[in-house]
Amino acid sequence: MPKKFLAELIGTFWLVLGGCGSAVLAAVFPYDNAAANPLGLGFLGVSLAFGLTLLTAVYAIGHVSGCHINPAVSFGLWAGGKFPGSGLLPYIVAQVLGAVIAGGVIKLVASGRPGFELTGPTPLATNGFGAHSPGGYGLLAALVIEVILTFIFLLVILGATHKQELGAIAGVPIGLSLTLIHLISIPVTNTSVNPARSTGVALWVGGEAIGQLWLFWLAPIVGALLAGWFYKAAFQPTES
Amino acid sequence: MPKKFLAELIGTFWLVLGGCGSAVLAAVFPYDNAAANPLGLGFLGVSLAFGLTLLTAVYAIGHVSGCHINPAVSFGLWAGGKFPGSGLLPYIVAQVLGAVIAGGVIKLVASGRPGFELTGPTPLATNGFGAHSPGGYGLLAALVIEVILTFIFLLVILGATHKQELGAIAGVPIGLSLTLIHLISIPVTNTSVNPARSTGVALWVGGEAIGQLWLFWLAPIVGALLAGWFYKAAFQPTES
Amino acid sequence: MPKKFLAELIGTFWLVLGGCGSAVLAAVFPYDNAAANPLGLGFLGVSLAFGLTLLTAVYAIGHVSGCHINPAVSFGLWAGGKFPGSGLLPYIVAQVLGAVIAGGVIKLVASGRPGFELTGPTPLATNGFGAHSPGGYGLLAALVIEVILTFIFLLVILGATHKQELGAIAGVPIGLSLTLIHLISIPVTNTSVNPARSTGVALWVGGEAIGQLWLFWLAPIVGALLAGWFYKAAFQPTES
Amino acid sequence: MPKKFLAELIGTFWLVLGGCGSAVLAAVFPYDNAAANPLGLGFLGVSLAFGLTLLTAVYAIGHVSGCHINPAVSFGLWAGGKFPGSGLLPYIVAQVLGAVIAGGVIKLVASGRPGFELTGPTPLATNGFGAHSPGGYGLLAALVIEVILTFIFLLVILGATHKQELGAIAGVPIGLSLTLIHLISIPVTNTSVNPARSTGVALWVGGEAIGQLWLFWLAPIVGALLAGWFYKAAFQPTES
Repeated sequence: MPKKFLAELIGTFWLVLGGCGSAVLAAVFPYDNAAANPLGLGFLGVSLAFGLTLLTAVYAIGHVSGCHINPAVSFGLWAGGKFPGSGLLPYIVAQVLGAVIAGGVIKLVASGRPGFELTGPTPLATNGFGAHSPGGYGLLAALVIEVILTFIFLLVILGATHKQELGAIAGVPIGLSLTLIHLISIPVTNTSVNPARSTGVALWVGGEAIGQLWLFWLAPIVGALLAGWFYKAAFQPTES
Repeated sequence: MPKKFLAELIGTFWLVLGGCGSAVLAAVFPYDNAAANPLGLGFLGVSLAFGLTLLTAVYAIGHVSGCHINPAVSFGLWAGGKFPGSGLLPYIVAQVLGAVIAGGVIKLVASGRPGFELTGPTPLATNGFGAHSPGGYGLLAALVIEVILTFIFLLVILGATHKQELGAIAGVPIGLSLTLIHLISIPVTNTSVNPARSTGVALWVGGEAIGQLWLFWLAPIVGALLAGWFYKAAFQPTES
Repeated sequence: MPKKFLAELIGTFWLVLGGCGSAVLAAVFPYDNAAANPLGLGFLGVSLAFGLTLLTAVYAIGHVSGCHINPAVSFGLWAGGKFPGSGLLPYIVAQVLGAVIAGGVIKLVASGRPGFELTGPTPLATNGFGAHSPGGYGLLAALVIEVILTFIFLLVILGATHKQELGAIAGVPIGLSLTLIHLISIPVTNTSVNPARSTGVALWVGGEAIGQLWLFWLAPIVGALLAGWFYKAAFQPTES
Repeated sequence: MPKKFLAELIGTFWLVLGGCGSAVLAAVFPYDNAAANPLGLGFLGVSLAFGLTLLTAVYAIGHVSGCHINPAVSFGLWAGGKFPGSGLLPYIVAQVLGAVIAGGVIKLVASGRPGFELTGPTPLATNGFGAHSPGGYGLLAALVIEVILTFIFLLVILGATHKQELGAIAGVPIGLSLTLIHLISIPVTNTSVNPARSTGVALWVGGEAIGQLWLFWLAPIVGALLAGWFYKAAFQPTES
């Protein structure tokens, strides 16, 4: 377990550093020309960054821990019969720890330029709804989109890893599915589908970022559990 | 068949939710600065989203139903001798059903922000020509581009899956060919090459979106049938 | 040979339709707001389109003709000892024919909107230098960049296909190397590295587009020949 | 060794030509509209270019030299027990040489348009901090981000190549991890994680670009060494 714990911690650190870090440092550039944003990444670049954290982490640590780096994924794989219940707690602790450390590093680096401040509806790339949704989307839209997107996310993970032969390529569709999920939903919730990612930055922001955290634990885990059970009941190849 | 039906339904749901959903929710952002669009996805991001829906769906449900998630693909594979004619009707019903549900979810989520309205030449990412073409392209240009692009789309699908050894990688070129198709033709028809995708959003918009639907059934299916027959006659490896 | 001829024709048609077509139809959008270009693909999207034409064509027709779809590639593979000299002429004829047909289709579709005109330094995505370089680069810069980029392009192609085991993945780095080549050099020459692609659109434009064509035959073929000879002398694995 | 020397030289030449070249030639376009940048690549396109240089080089020269094309990678693989210490000096000499030649070619091509000048905080895509950081980030932020990003970069490289079966796909996550690294850190240091890349352009700029070079040797090599030792101690599969 110590190796796996370390791998999940580093992997989730990477996910949050890469995804939220690129959003905080590079989504808009130069920082004083947000209205035109001639060089910054925009939602497309940030979506790519989130997906590539997962794609690369699968190859970096997949052989050590399976590279869940997301409590919802651990729950979903458990529901799908691919992960033992006894692993849930240590994996999730490692994931949250890695995410929180990444949140701190982002804040440290971002503070390294004169004039940096935590502002806007989603400071430090936190997730939210209502006043804390990038596009002002309400609670219902946030719930619906987070449940559905995590549901499909887990179907991709379970499908892409169901056969040994797909082992080498599986990280590509899995990582790119996270890019796609962000392409759809950054305007709605700033995209979570990952309670650890939401927690890792919210703790450094406080206030409403923490007050709305419950949704980003509830919705992704519900979506993932539904996918795990559904996959086991309907799509799993029968090996006899 | 029930498993395959379910897989095609979910896969087409994913294609429309990801492709049309990203277009509706995130192509332009912030919503009140369409003239500069500093953060939104633009045509490049939407093209990537469409391609990634297919790329990821291939890995999620390919082992269940073959992941057509497009009536034109089902017709083309039938013409190419890779899919039985008896499967056409149930597959297409599942595809249209999944697409229509996705259209409804997009409308529900999009309505979750104050001020949302169905406006512009292609509300809810519908397909069209003339006044309903993003760039004002006429009927002939729409027909030509949809037939040709679906023709090549099917050649990629048939070529990338013709050998067992390509099985693991095939989803990558197939998915990315859909990205490429969108990079070319969003300005012309908002890109269909998929009658289910067109229908799934048109039904929630009504009016001319439905009035022009015939072209987005006719042209993709014609292009796909031609490709299937051509492939069988000219490119198929002879196994003896 | 007829099958291979057809495959090279269709493949080069696809390369020019996808690459030059996306440039003509979608690089800037809306067409009347080129100064901000809120939705258009820009150089990044066009670069991706070129690369994806090649990436997808490798899987569509690679098993038929090897998917050169570029006279410089045919010359380079011949110099590298991978392609018989007797194949050069028919391959190149097929490539130029496919490219010219694609140029005509692009012109036809582009003309399908009111107000379309062939204007700017590179109408219909032609290649050029001096007054016909997008960024105003001169003859020397054009020569240097086209020779060097085609040289590396061929090294990628030769390296990625040198072992049977790489067969399935080879199309990915080969296709993406063409994306990279465009990311570097669109401002300089509008990027050729492919005499057929240059010819296919120049013939529909005429004038200086044809007057400068010699460079886009000379430089790519020189770069490719050098790469083929260099690879054979220095990098080729010795099989004994 | 001569073959490997040549391969590392050409590979690093490609990395710098593609990455720094695309930044210099195409990050902003047209050159006189930097405030809106309607066609230029922005940070996203440049990040993609850097990653694709590595992705394609892995397939072009990986079979010859292992494709380090980065002194930090050579050090990290040595620390991880994958590369002999005797190879460090010749590899690094080849890498720096290739990078310096590329810097010269970029300057030559860039000078091929009227009005080109070396200006801005990072002329010729040099790396820097403080006044030479694109976003004005200080020394501490630069050190922290370069060490951490190179650390993870090496974990991806070591993880993606730890099994023979991953051989064919490994270049994809490795290359894309370099894209991700740039998506995060271009605003901070213009992203190095590669002392040869930093040196290759700094020598053609002089002044503070050379004065700050020490950090871009120190930080990447420290991060890489830590990763190599950590991998060997914690993640390496035990083969017995």
